[in-house]
Amino acid sequence: MSRFYSDTVKNISPYVPGEQPKDRRFIKLNTNENPYPASPAVIEAVRSVTGLEARLYPDPEASALRRTLADHSGLAMNQVFVGNGSDEVLAMVFPAFFNRTDTIAFPDITYSFYPVYAALYEIPSLIIALAEDFTIDFNAYPNNLKGFLLANPNAPTGIAVSAGKIEELLQLRPDMLLVVDEAYIDFGGESVISLVPRYDNLLVVQTMSKARSLAGLRVGMAFGAPELIKGLESIRDSFNSYTLDVVAQRAAKAAYEDVAYFKKTRQTIMTTRDRAVAALLEIGMQVCPSSANFIFCTLPGVAGAEVQQYLRDNGVLVRRFAMERIEDWLRITVGLEEEMDEVIRLLRLLVQQQG
Amino acid sequence: MSRFYSDTVKNISPYVPGEQPKDRRFIKLNTNENPYPASPAVIEAVRSVTGLEARLYPDPEASALRRTLADHSGLAMNQVFVGNGSDEVLAMVFPAFFNRTDTIAFPDITYSFYPVYAALYEIPSLIIALAEDFTIDFNAYPNNLKGFLLANPNAPTGIAVSAGKIEELLQLRPDMLLVVDEAYIDFGGESVISLVPRYDNLLVVQTMSKARSLAGLRVGMAFGAPELIKGLESIRDSFNSYTLDVVAQRAAKAAYEDVAYFKKTRQTIMTTRDRAVAALLEIGMQVCPSSANFIFCTLPGVAGAEVQQYLRDNGVLVRRFAMERIEDWLRITVGLEEEMDEVIRLLRLLVQQQG
Repeated sequence: MSRFYSDTVKNISPYVPGEQPKDRRFIKLNTNENPYPASPAVIEAVRSVTGLEARLYPDPEASALRRTLADHSGLAMNQVFVGNGSDEVLAMVFPAFFNRTDTIAFPDITYSFYPVYAALYEIPSLIIALAEDFTIDFNAYPNNLKGFLLANPNAPTGIAVSAGKIEELLQLRPDMLLVVDEAYIDFGGESVISLVPRYDNLLVVQTMSKARSLAGLRVGMAFGAPELIKGLESIRDSFNSYTLDVVAQRAAKAAYEDVAYFKKTRQTIMTTRDRAVAALLEIGMQVCPSSANFIFCTLPGVAGAEVQQYLRDNGVLVRRFAMERIEDWLRITVGLEEEMDEVIRLLRLLVQQQG
Repeated sequence: MSRFYSDTVKNISPYVPGEQPKDRRFIKLNTNENPYPASPAVIEAVRSVTGLEARLYPDPEASALRRTLADHSGLAMNQVFVGNGSDEVLAMVFPAFFNRTDTIAFPDITYSFYPVYAALYEIPSLIIALAEDFTIDFNAYPNNLKGFLLANPNAPTGIAVSAGKIEELLQLRPDMLLVVDEAYIDFGGESVISLVPRYDNLLVVQTMSKARSLAGLRVGMAFGAPELIKGLESIRDSFNSYTLDVVAQRAAKAAYEDVAYFKKTRQTIMTTRDRAVAALLEIGMQVCPSSANFIFCTLPGVAGAEVQQYLRDNGVLVRRFAMERIEDWLRITVGLEEEMDEVIRLLRLLVQQQG
């Protein structure tokens, strides 16, 4: 340990992303990536960048990209913020809106980066357990919260909350900033972007990494009241003025504009998912109702670590969180049809061996 | 103002980057960009990225890029850190190594992002004035400092400190982390990267934005003892696990590997600079000795704001910092030969009009 470490470094437990294997080829269903390539329009946009453009700083306002996002969302440009992946956007939400004297809340089972941000910025957090069926009981949360982090659909469960329920919450708690993390919204959930003009206590965070097949380019966005967006800009400009490079800005714009490609690929993923869920249920697994591009499931009577290792030994990577209550559950990303066929074949085999 | 703003947002004064004009065409000498395009190898690297690669998260370790940086610097990979521009690297240095009870120091005239970071993370800062000739008197700094931020060459003056002087400082102050920001080192300064294996209180920060013509791709790096690099990784993984996208990683690797192109363009810039400095002195301007790709200068008897506006009216953007002591000075980026000819022609004309 270096004598120069801050207390923050000494005390923090960083987020651990899913494995990105470098050598062996796996069926990679562990990081919720899209199995389909980025739109051809994206690659064309990437290739359009010249050496003379690369030498110049990118537009710090990302105006062209934000214009596209605003137009497609029915919002104004000053209601749109972009960042280097939705993780960076979330990392800026904390210092923009929460003090070390505030309390924020999120469920025990949710995106595991939330408690890391809270620790990094020393924001006191109230963590309340999901119900037995992994749904959220909003009544369990007290009234004095400064903020609430709601992944919708939730990760890693895939369970969605309705837009109506969220609007109710916005009305009931006008002094609580509700951050709705819609990373997986395009696979069957109801986005609340349309509520942005009516509620100044709502911030919607999205990403290009999932439904737009752009995890490699790192683009995330937030939609909210102009004053909220200004708060995020203020933190960004105190941290790193140019977070989105010229290629990422152009690629993301192209991805968002290719609506036909987006609709086609996400529909295919949803169809594949529903078929896979049916097959997993049929072989006796317990499965959460998923509105995301992943399936949260468990094989009763078999340890999750064992199932994960068995799949890995057979060339399939899936994700497991070694946490209380869900240590026996696996989060399986929805891949290609044939990849899901292989997972199901392997799991069926395992069940037969157990039986 | 939003009722959700944190105290941080309420109190901070964000960094203001130089203007990136969108409409009118200027001779753009205001943000220290390289006038030459990125290497053709960079563009080839950018174009090699496929749609299937874009769908996957990038390597969070940026191993291939760090391998190249280590090899070219005579260091090991665990002595190299990369980030989304050197601004992001610096933004991670603060929470990694400084507490709110520590004191860090930097000069009054230096990179204007340092006080912004200090304010963002609430790190007490001792700011000591440069001497009359804009050099640093290290003896003026007390012994109890946790950190020191040294831009070398300094910005916006362009004045460099020798590697010998820095090594002396490292020996005299073993408990002070010396962060040497070498953003402009390739234009005539002496890098202290070679001291990294011998001093665990040294962190060297560099960027691809200047000598590598890659401002648009946002890649910065830090070189230091493995324990220091681990500290930075710990903060990164608590903030944003994947800060460098797949295109930026590949482009930066190609830029660093094209040594011949780098040497040729930086030599041209230094030659252009020296010629421009001689011409500015000849027309009666006061000029700082520059080891950077910019020239800090003033026209005695004429307000800096006036000179800046005159240049702007004639199609040339330069930077000025409206701060005590340097409000009459201009920072002129070294551009193409013909761009510098035009600036000198305009300034000569102004001097003749004044005389």
